[in-house]
Amino acid sequence: MHPINLKQKFDLFTDQWSPKIITSLNGQDVKLAKLQGDFVWHDHEAEDELFFVVKGTLYIEFETHTATLNPGELLVVPRGVQHRPYTGAEEVWIMLFEPSEIKHTGEVEHALTVETYDHI
Amino acid sequence: MHPINLKQKFDLFTDQWSPKIITSLNGQDVKLAKLQGDFVWHDHEAEDELFFVVKGTLYIEFETHTATLNPGELLVVPRGVQHRPYTGAEEVWIMLFEPSEIKHTGEVEHALTVETYDHI
Repeated sequence: MHPINLKQKFDLFTDQWSPKIITSLNGQDVKLAKLQGDFVWHDHEAEDELFFVVKGTLYIEFETHTATLNPGELLVVPRGVQHRPYTGAEEVWIMLFEPSEIKHTGEVEHALTVETYDHI
Repeated sequence: MHPINLKQKFDLFTDQWSPKIITSLNGQDVKLAKLQGDFVWHDHEAEDELFFVVKGTLYIEFETHTATLNPGELLVVPRGVQHRPYTGAEEVWIMLFEPSEIKHTGEVEHALTVETYDHI
């Protein structure tokens, strides 16, 4: 029951595309991640996923359109919807809200797939 | 699957202590609220509650201590823990993340109790 400062948490890691758990509630995790470049197309069969941008500009490509998220903006990717996050040249910092049992790249196995999430 | 801009959403309402739902996922709601002054002591028997401060300084009083949250800081109040949010003279803007079935003031009936949450 003490505050968590996002900036201080972001300062604790430098690896990209590797979400870190900062707290959990109601079976959901709150994660921070640093992103740069292209991620892989994937979906999550049973989990909705919230992206909130803290720094930089995040793009999320869907089959129908591409969403652009700037700091202070969020977007929910519903379960079962194929999506591909990517960035421009600049690193992007995001906060994620999603169920604790979610798999990083859904059922897609990829070099970027993270098996377990670190707690910071 | 379109971005939600927090600032634009905050501009849609002026009432205080009355959380508005901006999106939902996995049985949880994301809400925005404007706070000023003192809230009532309460707990939520079965729901953890996340407070994220967007603007101003929020205080959350517990039986053991008082937490101070500034913009970019978050705190999870675990289920069953008595808490009382309050602010200084300045209005505070927060984002909440909590289960959809949560009651505003727990089992406490109070003039500030909201029975249903507006969607904005």
